Amino acid sequence: MTIGFGVIGAGMIGTEHARRVNNVLTGGEVVAVNDVNAEGAKRLADSLGGNVKVFDSGHDLINADNVDAVMVTSWGPTHEEFVLSAIKAGKYVFCEKPLATTAAGCQRIVDAEVAAGKRLVMVGFMRRFDSGYRLLKQAIQDGEVGEPLMLHCAHRNPEVGETYVTPMAIQDTLVHELDVLRWLLDDDYKTVQVVFPRTTRHSHSKLRDPQVVLMETVKGIRIDVEIFVNCKYGYDIQCSVVGEDGIANLPEPQSLLVRKDAKLYTTVLTDWKKRFVDSYDVELQDFIDGIGSGDLPGPTAWDGFCAAVASDACVKAQETGNIEPVTMPARPAFYD
Amino acid sequence: MTIGFGVIGAGMIGTEHARRVNNVLTGGEVVAVNDVNAEGAKRLADSLGGNVKVFDSGHDLINADNVDAVMVTSWGPTHEEFVLSAIKAGKYVFCEKPLATTAAGCQRIVDAEVAAGKRLVMVGFMRRFDSGYRLLKQAIQDGEVGEPLMLHCAHRNPEVGETYVTPMAIQDTLVHELDVLRWLLDDDYKTVQVVFPRTTRHSHSKLRDPQVVLMETVKGIRIDVEIFVNCKYGYDIQCSVVGEDGIANLPEPQSLLVRKDAKLYTTVLTDWKKRFVDSYDVELQDFIDGIGSGDLPGPTAWDGFCAAVASDACVKAQETGNIEPVTMPARPAFYD
Amino acid sequence: MTIGFGVIGAGMIGTEHARRVNNVLTGGEVVAVNDVNAEGAKRLADSLGGNVKVFDSGHDLINADNVDAVMVTSWGPTHEEFVLSAIKAGKYVFCEKPLATTAAGCQRIVDAEVAAGKRLVMVGFMRRFDSGYRLLKQAIQDGEVGEPLMLHCAHRNPEVGETYVTPMAIQDTLVHELDVLRWLLDDDYKTVQVVFPRTTRHSHSKLRDPQVVLMETVKGIRIDVEIFVNCKYGYDIQCSVVGEDGIANLPEPQSLLVRKDAKLYTTVLTDWKKRFVDSYDVELQDFIDGIGSGDLPGPTAWDGFCAAVASDACVKAQETGNIEPVTMPARPAFYD
Amino acid sequence: MTIGFGVIGAGMIGTEHARRVNNVLTGGEVVAVNDVNAEGAKRLADSLGGNVKVFDSGHDLINADNVDAVMVTSWGPTHEEFVLSAIKAGKYVFCEKPLATTAAGCQRIVDAEVAAGKRLVMVGFMRRFDSGYRLLKQAIQDGEVGEPLMLHCAHRNPEVGETYVTPMAIQDTLVHELDVLRWLLDDDYKTVQVVFPRTTRHSHSKLRDPQVVLMETVKGIRIDVEIFVNCKYGYDIQCSVVGEDGIANLPEPQSLLVRKDAKLYTTVLTDWKKRFVDSYDVELQDFIDGIGSGDLPGPTAWDGFCAAVASDACVKAQETGNIEPVTMPARPAFYD
Repeated sequence: MTIGFGVIGAGMIGTEHARRVNNVLTGGEVVAVNDVNAEGAKRLADSLGGNVKVFDSGHDLINADNVDAVMVTSWGPTHEEFVLSAIKAGKYVFCEKPLATTAAGCQRIVDAEVAAGKRLVMVGFMRRFDSGYRLLKQAIQDGEVGEPLMLHCAHRNPEVGETYVTPMAIQDTLVHELDVLRWLLDDDYKTVQVVFPRTTRHSHSKLRDPQVVLMETVKGIRIDVEIFVNCKYGYDIQCSVVGEDGIANLPEPQSLLVRKDAKLYTTVLTDWKKRFVDSYDVELQDFIDGIGSGDLPGPTAWDGFCAAVASDACVKAQETGNIEPVTMPARPAFYD
Repeated sequence: MTIGFGVIGAGMIGTEHARRVNNVLTGGEVVAVNDVNAEGAKRLADSLGGNVKVFDSGHDLINADNVDAVMVTSWGPTHEEFVLSAIKAGKYVFCEKPLATTAAGCQRIVDAEVAAGKRLVMVGFMRRFDSGYRLLKQAIQDGEVGEPLMLHCAHRNPEVGETYVTPMAIQDTLVHELDVLRWLLDDDYKTVQVVFPRTTRHSHSKLRDPQVVLMETVKGIRIDVEIFVNCKYGYDIQCSVVGEDGIANLPEPQSLLVRKDAKLYTTVLTDWKKRFVDSYDVELQDFIDGIGSGDLPGPTAWDGFCAAVASDACVKAQETGNIEPVTMPARPAFYD
Repeated sequence: MTIGFGVIGAGMIGTEHARRVNNVLTGGEVVAVNDVNAEGAKRLADSLGGNVKVFDSGHDLINADNVDAVMVTSWGPTHEEFVLSAIKAGKYVFCEKPLATTAAGCQRIVDAEVAAGKRLVMVGFMRRFDSGYRLLKQAIQDGEVGEPLMLHCAHRNPEVGETYVTPMAIQDTLVHELDVLRWLLDDDYKTVQVVFPRTTRHSHSKLRDPQVVLMETVKGIRIDVEIFVNCKYGYDIQCSVVGEDGIANLPEPQSLLVRKDAKLYTTVLTDWKKRFVDSYDVELQDFIDGIGSGDLPGPTAWDGFCAAVASDACVKAQETGNIEPVTMPARPAFYD
Repeated sequence: MTIGFGVIGAGMIGTEHARRVNNVLTGGEVVAVNDVNAEGAKRLADSLGGNVKVFDSGHDLINADNVDAVMVTSWGPTHEEFVLSAIKAGKYVFCEKPLATTAAGCQRIVDAEVAAGKRLVMVGFMRRFDSGYRLLKQAIQDGEVGEPLMLHCAHRNPEVGETYVTPMAIQDTLVHELDVLRWLLDDDYKTVQVVFPRTTRHSHSKLRDPQVVLMETVKGIRIDVEIFVNCKYGYDIQCSVVGEDGIANLPEPQSLLVRKDAKLYTTVLTDWKKRFVDSYDVELQDFIDGIGSGDLPGPTAWDGFCAAVASDACVKAQETGNIEPVTMPARPAFYD
């Protein structure tokens, strides 16, 4: 059986995901496309070949008979309504982050899915599907470094533009750590704090860069994440798990080891799109396979909600300078 | 269009390739299976689901209407006849190494393909599809280390059994380097020499282990390959390109970096099957895509022939202790 | 001219330093020894050969005519009185850490030295003489990574005994970072905070281990130091300087790179005494040379005082859980 | 007791060694200097301070009463006569490489020392005193990688001038490996072969660069040494010991680990003088200490002779292209 995909949002990520489904992965095929920009939708449909129907309305697309699964890759503020509409229609839905722009919106989706009584929603936190993070999780589960006590992490970009302002370091950047570290540790956040080193000269007036986010989990694990989005030298994701018996570090991306110009070096990526490109393949294939088997993988709507709550607490901590609690309702048994 | 595959040889590698075609790759589907052991063929067919026909004869399978492409994964000595049969039938054929057990056999295949006037044969030298070797080739092509002058290589296995004897270090082990280094350098071998260090105590009476193979290419590049198949510590493939302006090394396989037990370490693989497992996917997907586009990728039958000629020269060099020439006819323009 | 050394304290470190002066370094010779334990003093004197006089009183030793420089390697609580006595006698004095057991005691030494009007005191913070830290300081001074913004550090020991309790993580362990990081950055501490991850099972009831110390400097640099004294895997000192243009890390200690037992590894030290053993040579040679040239190197008495003030603030932060200020008087011009 | 040193040869290396003896090491003092250039000798004597006598004749210097040990750092062709003269005078002598410019000359020195019946000569092969090579030798002795089977080595310089011609790759460059590898393995050479890759464009018409030297030892160990003296990227000494149970590699020189400009790198030295600068200290201190204890360390005159014989065989192998034997007389029991 081939899963019929309807794609809402024909921008860069939607286009890439659509081609991924059609050309790289097995078991799925794009059958419908919608975009707020009708030209863009048509262009994507044409590029995918014959039988892709263009819809003027995302909701109509969701309700089309041959659409088994919806891919929400539209503008962030529209995610919530399309995900809710898909749940209402009983359709599977893969939603790029954010699941919703507010924790309240995420909560509404969680409530709808629980009410529907069936796992339908998967959120596009792709790092869980990265081979490096998976090695790290496996090592933790195997007790290779003992019980985790601390995580030292970094999320560095070479540079950002003028539109990237202080809270975006949390909402757009840290949010990936907020999801993947919960998953890595099988734990939840209890408190967060943000401290600001002096700002790099490469930043601008509306962005405090770098920032250090300090978190404590329910289990008592301490996490520090350096966010540095004008680090100049590269796109660099670090994660070091300090356990009772040893320390395990996320692998560096594959690179030649070169001796040249008085240096012995590996190459650091500069384009973030290359860092997790393989993860998108795994993520979407798992989504397709999960539909087939009736056992949808995470990240769930609940995970999207948790990331939103933690993100809100971090933004508050940016503003107050205090140690802020991360207040969460109990996890519905539905998500156990 | 989906390419119909007929698989000859339902052993481990045939089974893996068949599942790869059906479950991982896009554009192909196994429709027919043959094995000298009828039970094995049936078992594979059943495991693949509904519509796979079992053939008693490999030649009948090749000639079946819905077989567009043949996968030869049977016992080595049978490869030549099935590949020739496929060429005769005008079918595409992917043949696991060796293309034939003798250089003369490879030559017959080359002659048949040239006579057919169409590229039909691809040989299963998977290393050309490994992401690490591809980075290395790209670096050479980009002039990152200048013109290559020397290659220092190693091919190490943790251990081999009693049936593995001295010439197999060439025929079964070095043969991968013989293909991939020609491709890497876009060059051909001119002379070969083999020297024997003292033998490890972990070897047995019919195997001189380790061995060092010294080769000179037509361009004058010097290559040394250490073959050490009872090295105990792991499966380890090394390739260092020394160029006029620098040196580039094949990346180590992905691993966590761990601090534990007074060591700072990455893990070395011990199971060879894990080292190039991703390459099989790329290789076969490229075969399928090449059929679709009418532009079959290498390794070609000519490459298989070249590996066989070089292998024969190395075995002779093992026996004589001399510097032996690698004598090749001119490459047919067909393969340019 | 050979500097005559008087050694007060014939324990392990005193004995090592005495032999260092006599057998490894140039320009100095031990001429007098004192220890609270007369036997120990005699044993050291005998081991050094002929002309070493044993004194019953440290103060008499200080005032002996042939004693040009005093080495204080006695029990910590006695340091202050001997250093003050040496200043009073106008003798150079090398004092192992701590300079005094309280900030007030350090202040008294600073006052005495300033009153004497001549640099006489050097404190034994040996890390400033480590070749790795010196490379790091040079890189910062050369602007190789731009202005420092953050430091990520770790100080890990394989294990400690039952007598090592929570405040000692600051007083005995962090104190080395407290000195060397000020020197590295040419900066002073402004605030400190201590957070406690869950405690490793390898610790005991009177020791919270690990701890993370968070500091802010006057320039606005943020420092985090993980202290983990039961980390099991080794003695490991990490220091990573995150600058505006790049990141520089303290080198790992020299080690063979080994491939064995499915690992590619370097060795991590387990004995802390080996980590900075070379630094002791450089430190004491610099002390001797500084006496000769009349230009004594740091760490000065002021540096000893600063470490004590910061240490007190960190211990308070352990107790309060708050962000504590590091309150310092202005640096006397004498130490500029 | 202080050893009185007479230095013959006041060039760069003589000057450095003289200052080393006077300012860095313990137990020795330069008391006499000679150079074929009287001005140079005077300049060195003056720079060393008061009591250094300038001799017009090296032989007179050797026979001066207060000269206990001779340092031969003059032009290579004069080494033999000064070493023989020192032996005749019963004086200890440290001779920079080469011990003599011919194997026959080295043989004459060996004969003279054996006749004198006392170890007097030490040759300046400093690599034996390098901390990295010592770690490697210790690991071999401890059986950490099992019995050595192969050595893969490289000796690379960024560039050489027009006066450096093909045989100098052996005589000036490889000679260091010829000594240190014998010592590392406690073995002797049996055969040598030289192969020439195509020459780098950075070389000149009288220099084939790179070269690969292939050696077999008496124990059957196979060694390959890449000599590449216009490698451009740095001064790089590699030595990898492949043993029955694992592989150990010479450590890289100490360097910061830096992330900058899309690279993760350590620095490769470009100035050869920095690579073994610490070894000179250890080497000469061991010479001084050996005089004091009456147990002079190697490299001995016999080691100097062995290096010369192996060097001659390699130069012959450069010319013939053949596998050349390294023919040695039996080692005198005197050197056991």
